[in-house]
Amino acid sequence: MRTSRLEAFSDGVLAIIITIMVLELKVPEDHHIHDLVRTTGLGLLSYLLSFIYVGIYWNNHHHMFHVVRRVSGGVLWANLALLLCLSLFPFTTAWVDESRLARDPVVLYGLNFLAAAIAYFILQKVIIRAEGPDSALRRALGTDFKGKASPVVYLIGIIAALTLGTAGVVIALASYVVVAIVWIVPDRRIARLVDESEQG
Amino acid sequence: MRTSRLEAFSDGVLAIIITIMVLELKVPEDHHIHDLVRTTGLGLLSYLLSFIYVGIYWNNHHHMFHVVRRVSGGVLWANLALLLCLSLFPFTTAWVDESRLARDPVVLYGLNFLAAAIAYFILQKVIIRAEGPDSALRRALGTDFKGKASPVVYLIGIIAALTLGTAGVVIALASYVVVAIVWIVPDRRIARLVDESEQG
Amino acid sequence: MRTSRLEAFSDGVLAIIITIMVLELKVPEDHHIHDLVRTTGLGLLSYLLSFIYVGIYWNNHHHMFHVVRRVSGGVLWANLALLLCLSLFPFTTAWVDESRLARDPVVLYGLNFLAAAIAYFILQKVIIRAEGPDSALRRALGTDFKGKASPVVYLIGIIAALTLGTAGVVIALASYVVVAIVWIVPDRRIARLVDESEQG
Amino acid sequence: MRTSRLEAFSDGVLAIIITIMVLELKVPEDHHIHDLVRTTGLGLLSYLLSFIYVGIYWNNHHHMFHVVRRVSGGVLWANLALLLCLSLFPFTTAWVDESRLARDPVVLYGLNFLAAAIAYFILQKVIIRAEGPDSALRRALGTDFKGKASPVVYLIGIIAALTLGTAGVVIALASYVVVAIVWIVPDRRIARLVDESEQG
Repeated sequence: MRTSRLEAFSDGVLAIIITIMVLELKVPEDHHIHDLVRTTGLGLLSYLLSFIYVGIYWNNHHHMFHVVRRVSGGVLWANLALLLCLSLFPFTTAWVDESRLARDPVVLYGLNFLAAAIAYFILQKVIIRAEGPDSALRRALGTDFKGKASPVVYLIGIIAALTLGTAGVVIALASYVVVAIVWIVPDRRIARLVDESEQG
Repeated sequence: MRTSRLEAFSDGVLAIIITIMVLELKVPEDHHIHDLVRTTGLGLLSYLLSFIYVGIYWNNHHHMFHVVRRVSGGVLWANLALLLCLSLFPFTTAWVDESRLARDPVVLYGLNFLAAAIAYFILQKVIIRAEGPDSALRRALGTDFKGKASPVVYLIGIIAALTLGTAGVVIALASYVVVAIVWIVPDRRIARLVDESEQG
Repeated sequence: MRTSRLEAFSDGVLAIIITIMVLELKVPEDHHIHDLVRTTGLGLLSYLLSFIYVGIYWNNHHHMFHVVRRVSGGVLWANLALLLCLSLFPFTTAWVDESRLARDPVVLYGLNFLAAAIAYFILQKVIIRAEGPDSALRRALGTDFKGKASPVVYLIGIIAALTLGTAGVVIALASYVVVAIVWIVPDRRIARLVDESEQG
Repeated sequence: MRTSRLEAFSDGVLAIIITIMVLELKVPEDHHIHDLVRTTGLGLLSYLLSFIYVGIYWNNHHHMFHVVRRVSGGVLWANLALLLCLSLFPFTTAWVDESRLARDPVVLYGLNFLAAAIAYFILQKVIIRAEGPDSALRRALGTDFKGKASPVVYLIGIIAALTLGTAGVVIALASYVVVAIVWIVPDRRIARLVDESEQG
């Protein structure tokens, strides 16, 4: 099986996820810019964060499958599990927004990030196993420090929110933002490998 | 006619179906995790089941068209009929969820599964007829036990729901889950044929 | 410019149009099958009709661009005008449904069909002019009887609805259904040309 | 990295943006055509304007990436920033419509156009820098008069709306319409270059 149709389907799902979140944004009842800031400001910020996260996943997914040559049945299902986790972002984002950053929605938002990170990790493992000992992806990933550190950062944020009250919620949100910033840099390891394989 | 554009269009429709179901999920009014479980828990479970079903159909569709070389007008329409059945999943899923598993919505949900299974069966037949006596798909399908057994299992569930009261509804839901589990295993017959044709 | 990206974008828009109409379907408040028939039955029928229409347009679009080799700026805009007309189907369908087949919504529904037919006709003309005297599409279309007769049938239906009261509304709806049935047969003229060009 | 998957993803997002705006259109409560004009007329006009804008961006994006051969990580992110700006159109369009052309929503609408124009400009710059001194896109763009003039026209409209009361709002809306008309003509400079490179 080639990867083209899996990539096309994933592109479609990610394109929809990243776009339908805007449907959750409530148009302000009143017509002044301060109404917008008051009623929709938080929604716009959480939309922005979730947009960036889906963008990061699309970006890394794009880089990863650039190296992958063939997909197995296991890869199809691991990929669907990742898409399932990401498809819940519009829901968890809306709850965070409507609850005005209440504790439980912020924790659930973090669990959603955590689930997506774990699903992505499993997808990598399934691909590497399907490719065998010469896996180009495994060489490209190296130690995969970012992939392993992100779930830990989410967990710290989630635990802080559960134990430290309002300060914990702030720490949790900060941890989600920090991971996003770290990942906005695309995966240079894979990019480098692609460059080398095309030059060599 | 090549299959590429039919696959792209089907991918688009399936990607949208699998994603817009999340728009039906209601954000809880209150901000505690037990509100989520109480108001949205059932919705999340039925979302999960429908997501898995659409995933199964995408998966099998992907495998099937990997073997198909050309499409006729009949194949285009049989494929659209399948997409029509699948496009009703967000609606039937939402009714099951909002009625808290009432009998009639659960029966309709089953009829939707049944209609999709029959549409898929017809699509296979139309492709095989268009391909003629040497159809690679026919060889790949063999006895097609799963494809023939699934509608029977749905029917048993539907009849149980219609005749046995609450216990019947449970049997119906169990039958839908059982068929999903059986199908999560991708169609190894076609996968094997693909492998052979690429090695041989 | 090749046609591939225009086709991909059109596929995306058509896939979304055909799928989001299901979001307009209201889940019945009550949980019995006769509630579904009473509250959503009409919606399901109009959904079915609009689904078939979008399917017909996708089908014919698919056949048409199979013959087209290159697109110009004019083709891009004529194609967008067609997509604009089709994108209004979810809106006009919802009004027909919610008004329980009132006269004005049925007329507007017909005007939407008419606008889409005219936009498709213009798209054909723009492509043929861009291809020059040896246009494969012009040869394939021949007299284009169906393309020219459909707007006339819509117009008859619209005028009937505007002048004949309830009977006129029935005639209008019948005219939309009749055109759909005529078009469900894909454009065999183009299919034949494709076959010939591949054999010859 | 080839451009195909970036184009496919962008096509998906643009197809969704252009289509979901129709979901914001409210079906009139009453069933007469004058109710439609009164309640939805403005919505249809703003839908039309936003549809044309997304169409223009798709068109120029299509032309631009026809010349681009390879994408870097920076191009992926600049492209996502453009998609983010465009994805807010359904929201800002809905506010303009629901507020019946109140000043602040019209200003925000203009800021959205301005943000998209700036994001497009940055995307061009990032591509040209990635392509190096022989950039085909830079030669194709020439002085890029339209690209540089559009933000100025938006700014004039925005400032007029902020300072001149109702007349200023009209000027702002006129400025958005004028830019749309200017851009409906696709980028002939790039089209010409494509033609030349294929002939030469």
